[in-house]
Amino acid sequence: MDSTSGTGASPPRIIIVGGGFGGIAAARALRKAPARVLLIDRTNHHVFQPLLYQVATSILAPEHVAAPIRHVLLGQGNTTVIQAAVTGVDVEKKVCLVDGVPLPLPYDYLVLATGVQHSYFGHDEYAEYAPGLKTLTDAVQFRNKILGAFEACERTPVPRDHFELLTFVIVGGGPTGVELAGAIAELARQTLAAEFRRFDPASLKLILVEAGPRILPSFDEALAAAATAKLTKLGVDVRTGARVEKVDAEGVLVQGERIRTGNVFWAAGVKGSPAAHWLGADADRAGRVKVLADCSVPAHPEIFVVGDTACLEEGGKPLPGVAQVAIQQGRYVGRLIAGRLKGKPAPPPFKYLNKGNLATVGRNFAVMEAFGIRTAGLFAKLVWAFVHIQFLVLTSSRIGTLYRWSWKVLTRQRLARLIIEPGSTRGARSPLVPDQQHAVNGVDPTSTTTARS
Amino acid sequence: MDSTSGTGASPPRIIIVGGGFGGIAAARALRKAPARVLLIDRTNHHVFQPLLYQVATSILAPEHVAAPIRHVLLGQGNTTVIQAAVTGVDVEKKVCLVDGVPLPLPYDYLVLATGVQHSYFGHDEYAEYAPGLKTLTDAVQFRNKILGAFEACERTPVPRDHFELLTFVIVGGGPTGVELAGAIAELARQTLAAEFRRFDPASLKLILVEAGPRILPSFDEALAAAATAKLTKLGVDVRTGARVEKVDAEGVLVQGERIRTGNVFWAAGVKGSPAAHWLGADADRAGRVKVLADCSVPAHPEIFVVGDTACLEEGGKPLPGVAQVAIQQGRYVGRLIAGRLKGKPAPPPFKYLNKGNLATVGRNFAVMEAFGIRTAGLFAKLVWAFVHIQFLVLTSSRIGTLYRWSWKVLTRQRLARLIIEPGSTRGARSPLVPDQQHAVNGVDPTSTTTARS
Repeated sequence: MDSTSGTGASPPRIIIVGGGFGGIAAARALRKAPARVLLIDRTNHHVFQPLLYQVATSILAPEHVAAPIRHVLLGQGNTTVIQAAVTGVDVEKKVCLVDGVPLPLPYDYLVLATGVQHSYFGHDEYAEYAPGLKTLTDAVQFRNKILGAFEACERTPVPRDHFELLTFVIVGGGPTGVELAGAIAELARQTLAAEFRRFDPASLKLILVEAGPRILPSFDEALAAAATAKLTKLGVDVRTGARVEKVDAEGVLVQGERIRTGNVFWAAGVKGSPAAHWLGADADRAGRVKVLADCSVPAHPEIFVVGDTACLEEGGKPLPGVAQVAIQQGRYVGRLIAGRLKGKPAPPPFKYLNKGNLATVGRNFAVMEAFGIRTAGLFAKLVWAFVHIQFLVLTSSRIGTLYRWSWKVLTRQRLARLIIEPGSTRGARSPLVPDQQHAVNGVDPTSTTTARS
Repeated sequence: MDSTSGTGASPPRIIIVGGGFGGIAAARALRKAPARVLLIDRTNHHVFQPLLYQVATSILAPEHVAAPIRHVLLGQGNTTVIQAAVTGVDVEKKVCLVDGVPLPLPYDYLVLATGVQHSYFGHDEYAEYAPGLKTLTDAVQFRNKILGAFEACERTPVPRDHFELLTFVIVGGGPTGVELAGAIAELARQTLAAEFRRFDPASLKLILVEAGPRILPSFDEALAAAATAKLTKLGVDVRTGARVEKVDAEGVLVQGERIRTGNVFWAAGVKGSPAAHWLGADADRAGRVKVLADCSVPAHPEIFVVGDTACLEEGGKPLPGVAQVAIQQGRYVGRLIAGRLKGKPAPPPFKYLNKGNLATVGRNFAVMEAFGIRTAGLFAKLVWAFVHIQFLVLTSSRIGTLYRWSWKVLTRQRLARLIIEPGSTRGARSPLVPDQQHAVNGVDPTSTTTARS
């Protein structure tokens, strides 16, 4: 199948599993390819993961950070999108097994961009008490939980319960944990400050727990120190070298200290999607598929794995699970396949162009390392805002997000502060529709979104 | 307690149950009153119900049609807001019983603005298969269901199942049903038309079932006929004089005809909240509290009931359950209580100022009767848009909604087309927080939102 030009025969079929950064980039690179492209995602939308924490902390609405996939790929006449959960791959027969689809779906080329799921280091029971932030469902639930804690304090002003109700523990000092901590601190100390009468929202106890020696391990040490100082100034208790030993209904056990809380958020540790398992391919310790220099699976030149669920080594180290890697790999693979279909020679191996690293701490502070510059503060935050706006795939999301951010800057108000409880699920799903897998809170076996570690 | 001026004694306590149109209006009218006002709502937000159908049909996001109550009432120093479910009232002891609050809450004045719940005419088992549209949770679930039906067709293109999957039945020909029908028709025939490859979304079967002789019974006959014509032009099958005999997992039975469908939406029939039951007060056939001309409960001059859950007769007929009635009654009662606290004489009885009736059918058509004018068409739609924008309580919602509507007019695109599945509820709720009642889909015993019949 190396140089199928499609003359006479029906066009080759390319299946892309995952509508996150990697999958969308691959699909877009294939838009003019002489093939039939099918993109499968378990949700109907592409999530801009880096801004999920803003949905969780009521700055943005879900509609600002997600776009319907079939709308994103609307202009591509060769592409079909279906919402379904892939449950397996038969590499001999070259078919995908899909929940809710009676017959397996055949492919000539397969691109797996299924992302990662949260890892609880062998303690999956933690997931119930310490949800992660990977999907819109997660973000809406985080939001309910955070806002619900404040509502509970206003409802029953009992000091002892306050202590537990208003204690928030975030596990994991990478960018996600840091951004969440900064945003919750500001939510409590600024946005909500005047709105509660019976207690002071600023009295919340916010603890960021990191097992390693410092937060933001992937950043320069000086930048990590600046971020730590900023978090501390915002009232966050940053605990490094602190391992979580237990998570349960009562709270967490950190280095022998019991912290009673109902609000634990997991931002530490990810593991690959089941892609490696589906393919029977070699995986690294985190379950990510070990791929060759062109992102293909050894012995299967027609199968590619991109993004967080792939392990591609460059300079002896695996590339990080960040959005830029997924986007570049997806685009690379899309172009490679398109080139192959037209009989072009194979491109050079994939090379990651590191455009920099950014993490934000609160509304007017970020740390940035890019183009040889290392900086912390307002300038970095403006760059962060610019970059993230550019990345949103829909113009409408850009306008909407810019509007919300502007409103927040002008008024310090967050307008997405709604607690929308999940209803009973029965009325919501047509009984005539075959049952779909639904993402269990925090664990998403075929996650299609790209994580940042 | 008729003329407490508050000198020396602690200020009188006013409890308002419900953060919908009636409750918010009452609270705002009391903002300068020498009293302590407590507003209790089972959710944390005020919902602009007339636009819920736009959330359900992916035109607007929930954040556009709802506002956090404590933000709405932020400027009122005398007002506290708590999120909780009221479970009863002891009129002798003058206390409210509140879920999650250990001690009953005492009041000197009580305003119940608890709205209505859906009535299935004695068949509450229908609720599981035919959800109603009263809350944000309902709207998000409707959205999931509607979009999910189209996704299911793209996933498994089997003609026979299509028929059932793409059949939508809306029960109830009042404004809600009519607006929902128009919006779903346009969603399928315009917005989604180009986005599905394996079937034609325009092939959906949309049936609006009304038991009475015509739709929009509260409107002038000619306007109702114009609306019917417009719906028919949009491809809606409008069936009047058609009673629903059964709703179950297979679909509906209408006048002996079995319609197989998984998509049934209930917009017919409401009944009062449990307010009458709590008070042990006389109620009408629909369970609404019969109130005196000043909205107070007979023999209880300190208890008032406003909005949909009140039955106030004017000219021998009970006032309709529409937003304007709730707003005017809420404002009237707020001013009455404030006046009483300052020793002012009682105001004249409540008089409803009917500012008109509006219902929209699709994007460029509405019917309107106001100020002696009866009209149908684009002009009415513009008035409808203007009026509804004005009503949104937050400026930010107005801007956001205007933006979304403009985008839709320019591009025919609906950007809120996300299916966000409810996650597991356990991770979302702190186990240390006393369990709250959650709105069961379609049946909300202490609904605080104001319905339109």
